[in-house]
Amino acid sequence: MDFPTIEFTDNKLRLIDQRKLPTDKSFYEASNYQEVVYAIREMVVRGAPAIGATGAYGVVLAAMEYQNLERDQFLAKVKEANREMVSARPTAVNLPWAIERMEKILLTVAHRENEEIITVLLDEADKIAAEDVETNKMISKHGNEIVPHNATILTHCNTGALATVDYGTALGIIREAHSSGKNIHVYADETRPRLQGARLTAYELVEEGIPATLIADSVAATLIRDGKIDLILLGADRIAINGDVANKIGTYMLSELAKKFEVPFYSVAPISTIDFKIASGAEIEIEERDPDEVRQIRGVQVAPAGVGVYNPAFDVTPASNITGIITEKGIIKPCKEEISKLKD
Amino acid sequence: MDFPTIEFTDNKLRLIDQRKLPTDKSFYEASNYQEVVYAIREMVVRGAPAIGATGAYGVVLAAMEYQNLERDQFLAKVKEANREMVSARPTAVNLPWAIERMEKILLTVAHRENEEIITVLLDEADKIAAEDVETNKMISKHGNEIVPHNATILTHCNTGALATVDYGTALGIIREAHSSGKNIHVYADETRPRLQGARLTAYELVEEGIPATLIADSVAATLIRDGKIDLILLGADRIAINGDVANKIGTYMLSELAKKFEVPFYSVAPISTIDFKIASGAEIEIEERDPDEVRQIRGVQVAPAGVGVYNPAFDVTPASNITGIITEKGIIKPCKEEISKLKD
Repeated sequence: MDFPTIEFTDNKLRLIDQRKLPTDKSFYEASNYQEVVYAIREMVVRGAPAIGATGAYGVVLAAMEYQNLERDQFLAKVKEANREMVSARPTAVNLPWAIERMEKILLTVAHRENEEIITVLLDEADKIAAEDVETNKMISKHGNEIVPHNATILTHCNTGALATVDYGTALGIIREAHSSGKNIHVYADETRPRLQGARLTAYELVEEGIPATLIADSVAATLIRDGKIDLILLGADRIAINGDVANKIGTYMLSELAKKFEVPFYSVAPISTIDFKIASGAEIEIEERDPDEVRQIRGVQVAPAGVGVYNPAFDVTPASNITGIITEKGIIKPCKEEISKLKD
Repeated sequence: MDFPTIEFTDNKLRLIDQRKLPTDKSFYEASNYQEVVYAIREMVVRGAPAIGATGAYGVVLAAMEYQNLERDQFLAKVKEANREMVSARPTAVNLPWAIERMEKILLTVAHRENEEIITVLLDEADKIAAEDVETNKMISKHGNEIVPHNATILTHCNTGALATVDYGTALGIIREAHSSGKNIHVYADETRPRLQGARLTAYELVEEGIPATLIADSVAATLIRDGKIDLILLGADRIAINGDVANKIGTYMLSELAKKFEVPFYSVAPISTIDFKIASGAEIEIEERDPDEVRQIRGVQVAPAGVGVYNPAFDVTPASNITGIITEKGIIKPCKEEISKLKD
């Protein structure tokens, strides 16, 4: 990518405005946490790992905003800001994960000068961002081991550099497989309603010169049936301890077809996507978004304004439909025994 | 509907321009068969029964255009026009069905004066159109018998008044069930890439006051899994003698979920949709359409211009996934024994 997804400079968080890709490359600047809440909610930035890192920088901005308050009030205000950020999008666990990590650090330095606290928080946010890139590269190395030569790979939504701080998770594996000379071909679902596949994944694939074909979401089923897909690589927004995976709406549908036709189906995610607190996918809150995401496309009306809409952003795929979960520590089976081992 | 889908007056075929719905109600006028070819190819008019009737009027326009030629040349030119119309869209069989029917009539009157021939052809086209409405009403009566009270019905693409001369097939049953007081609720798939569900079905449902919810195509699978769908009613573009059905892309995917979760899944179509010449769906040509239908939505770019696209307009659902076929002669099992009985 010729621009960073997330960058913190001059006390501002600069995000590539993903709502405007692939046609416009413009940036969104957040100089306070409220603007971070907006960016997450409105999907200026999206992708579970990317909104985790964004939230971490949001904590830094909140601390900067309240640094002149006295200690107790300062801590209370930052916590309040954190709660607001966490609730901006409820499904991906990486956001509360990153913010909890920031709060943990904050508590260890709470007795110090506010200015010093900010330095520590910024260091931690930078660490979260840098670790994300490292994690993705490790994920991609592990994942590439199961990519056959000449594989045709199906993906859904965007799990690339734009969904992370850089490189990507499922799309990171695709990058790695391509650059290691495996002669792969990618089918990318367009991923309605927000079209992350068409707008973002297709953009990244074209930029990288990876052979790719864009399809409407309804096309994948026939490709799977007709033996045209060797491997399915998807991201994850929250993984329960039993291996159930919440991911972009449409994932569950693909998993049923994959299971029926025995196509390997992997969820690709950093360990920070695992919610060790929940037993199964039944406990995952599924975000419902604005009906106009379906009734309009980039501002163009495509349905009568008067029609009702059901617009869930995610669905839950049962562990029984998933071949494996590819993490930075290797590939595991989607079951409690293997997942719980990943908890520090 | 407050306007006809297809109307022949003053030697012109007037079509509601379905590309522009639901935002603009404007009409497209064809005063020669070439304009009919354009209207079918570009989907000014779409829906298997609707393009059948449109093609029939196209034959009338071709005959009018060539009426001053001497007999043999006249017949040759009309036949040439017919071939062009048939090839405008290859998958729906109703188009060749209607045109063959027009050609049959043409041969019986070929010895008469050209002006008289045109009158006979226009009568036959009017008959095809009128029969379509009658057929749909019979289909809807038969179909309504299997609609439970308080049913939640899933549909895909548009099979309504806009897909036919009037009333509709699958959406005709929905109309009938609603007006018979069954308190139904409809989930309508938006149906990418051409969004017939969002643009046309949602439009018809809102106009009729039928309770309806629009969803992205990827959402249906979770609704089916979660027991929220009682019945699936879809149209058909070509039915093979073994009961395999070609229909709008996405149909196959729904059929797999329906089968797994034992939700009744019906194909709804007039007998003119059955292609008695083909043994199975493997023989059906699947139309591939312009990549820009996926890369753009109503003229707005949503994917990089450089990405490849696979854009099949239809898929084939195997008979084994279909509960039944609802025709004007009643509901039959999707098998050779029952289908072949429908052949006159």
